[in-house]
Amino acid sequence: MNYLALANAGVEKLHPYQPGKPVEELERELGISNSIKLASNENPLGLGAKARAAIERALPELARYPDANGFALKSALAEKLAVNTDQLILGNGSNELIDLVYHTFVSAGQQVVYSQYTFIVYALATQGHGAEAVVVPAKDLGHDLDAMAAAITERTKLVCITNPNNPTGTFLTKAQLSAFLANVPSQVLVILDEAYTEYVAEDERHPSIDWLAQYPNLIVSRTFSKAYGLAGLRVGYMVAHPELISVLNRVREPFNCNSLALAAAEAALGDTEYLNEAVGLNQREMARYEAFFESQGISYVKSRANFITLDLKRDATPVYDALLREGVIVRPIAGYGLPTCLRISIGLEQENQRCIEALAKVLSQGV
Amino acid sequence: MNYLALANAGVEKLHPYQPGKPVEELERELGISNSIKLASNENPLGLGAKARAAIERALPELARYPDANGFALKSALAEKLAVNTDQLILGNGSNELIDLVYHTFVSAGQQVVYSQYTFIVYALATQGHGAEAVVVPAKDLGHDLDAMAAAITERTKLVCITNPNNPTGTFLTKAQLSAFLANVPSQVLVILDEAYTEYVAEDERHPSIDWLAQYPNLIVSRTFSKAYGLAGLRVGYMVAHPELISVLNRVREPFNCNSLALAAAEAALGDTEYLNEAVGLNQREMARYEAFFESQGISYVKSRANFITLDLKRDATPVYDALLREGVIVRPIAGYGLPTCLRISIGLEQENQRCIEALAKVLSQGV
Repeated sequence: MNYLALANAGVEKLHPYQPGKPVEELERELGISNSIKLASNENPLGLGAKARAAIERALPELARYPDANGFALKSALAEKLAVNTDQLILGNGSNELIDLVYHTFVSAGQQVVYSQYTFIVYALATQGHGAEAVVVPAKDLGHDLDAMAAAITERTKLVCITNPNNPTGTFLTKAQLSAFLANVPSQVLVILDEAYTEYVAEDERHPSIDWLAQYPNLIVSRTFSKAYGLAGLRVGYMVAHPELISVLNRVREPFNCNSLALAAAEAALGDTEYLNEAVGLNQREMARYEAFFESQGISYVKSRANFITLDLKRDATPVYDALLREGVIVRPIAGYGLPTCLRISIGLEQENQRCIEALAKVLSQGV
Repeated sequence: MNYLALANAGVEKLHPYQPGKPVEELERELGISNSIKLASNENPLGLGAKARAAIERALPELARYPDANGFALKSALAEKLAVNTDQLILGNGSNELIDLVYHTFVSAGQQVVYSQYTFIVYALATQGHGAEAVVVPAKDLGHDLDAMAAAITERTKLVCITNPNNPTGTFLTKAQLSAFLANVPSQVLVILDEAYTEYVAEDERHPSIDWLAQYPNLIVSRTFSKAYGLAGLRVGYMVAHPELISVLNRVREPFNCNSLALAAAEAALGDTEYLNEAVGLNQREMARYEAFFESQGISYVKSRANFITLDLKRDATPVYDALLREGVIVRPIAGYGLPTCLRISIGLEQENQRCIEALAKVLSQGV
């Protein structure tokens, strides 16, 4: 039976996700141990104490369905962001919410505009919905907003922007973003994906929540997977006009957020100490990588996120492989169209030191 | 801005999910306390000890992304079901997997065949994808398979069957189902939703996994939300032909199953003691309700699931409201087209006893 022939438009060109090898298997293959993983932009501090306590408290009720409305978490978010709860929607990670925007608003033949070298979910969702991807060439490895505005046509349904950008770490300023939003026709939806926004210095951060009043087509997307340290639990949220949220809620599965994610995210939101520690660590350790790259004359992209991308100006695969043999797992990003680059997630101090030493060793050996 | 006008075909006719009131709020409104909830077909035993221990073990890694491939849980399921891991796909509850089948295979204008009085997600997903619902009138409150087979046309993409059925508890035998499957053209997919299958006596249970070899269009759907007691964590699975699973995997979000769900479900699968206790309790307590209904001459539907549906042969709302005031929360199912019925989830012995006493009191008062 030809199942692909039965599938919807676009599905045939998708490929099943190829998961990375589990660390244990990699170690067995390479005959190493104690490897470190700096590959998925995870929070190296691990689960915070307040989130853990909230999980423990929620365990006795785990045979019950979650609160379909996420009342407590939405209330906490509304207070923190100074929005109403009806401007919020919660998801099984922000990935689910991005897909939900597509399920709700994007159909075959429509156009979606996004940048070269950005979060791969936009390409996958666009393809999976049979929509047409309008991929705008990057400028200095980041978004070229002027070119993106110029790429919008009458067929454009959605524009996706990641800021700071993944996998390059580039950053668009308030002025750049607000000028862009003013240029987008109001019937074109804009997802502004701020998965890494907590790592941006407060005075640099763009006031996206304030912009919602001005731009009814703006959807701000955030996650608890990065600075809040809850990647394993899957919880993200979007903020937008209440009527837009209401339309998304028509399509959302009622129990999409699990009970422990709801409880842990609410606790994490109130754990300023953990967040400050995560952001402070990231700043200090980012500086360590920058100093090393500069001392070695290694080209890198200035990053406002929790990772840093270096450009070896040649195929990065041999260096990636050599680092693996040193027990250091980083992320090759050839799949994003950057075969000469490697992305390193900022880890704990000793992990970054080990990564830097391994990189220095490998490069000095002429790999 | 008219967001609905921007939305995809079918979305405008959907309504946002109206969550039930949290128990606490209901109690405050009614001035009661210690109410019991027998409304959502949850496992009254609560989280099992083995699942809990597995969750505790997984907490330290919770800042890491989940295993995108669900290797350990799929391996355990494969062994238990005697299938290969490539015949399995895991989801954020079986609801997500049902939606995934629609996202992957169902598009606007195609037909989906399902029964009157069945799981409401089929109606919602059909509507949300702009497909045409072919709702086949029920026979004795259950599926009329002959009529369903006759309803299949050249435009039919999918048939959905729930067995045991929710919200009525009716059951189709092996012979009925296998005769039906033999009648379905191979290009028409069939979801056989077995959310409640663990409650069915083993000698009655249909051999759906064995049927997969014979019917490449069959998709068996199951969940850990019922007999395994993990509704709050969200984990379900589907079993089908490896090539069908591979197509679904193209559309699946990689991290759709959270880490604690993966760990807890694997442990729950091996916790025979918990499962046996849940099923044994359900059998004994189902008999308690049946005996009560028969003694009172109350009409009910014979159920193979973890709930029982009674038919008052008049508007059930006053009885539902009166039970609420007694602190007993059951499920009105007017939304399923059964305004004279109430669905009661089987609880713990003392909960069921209290429900029966409240019902006896309310009915004796002529409510």
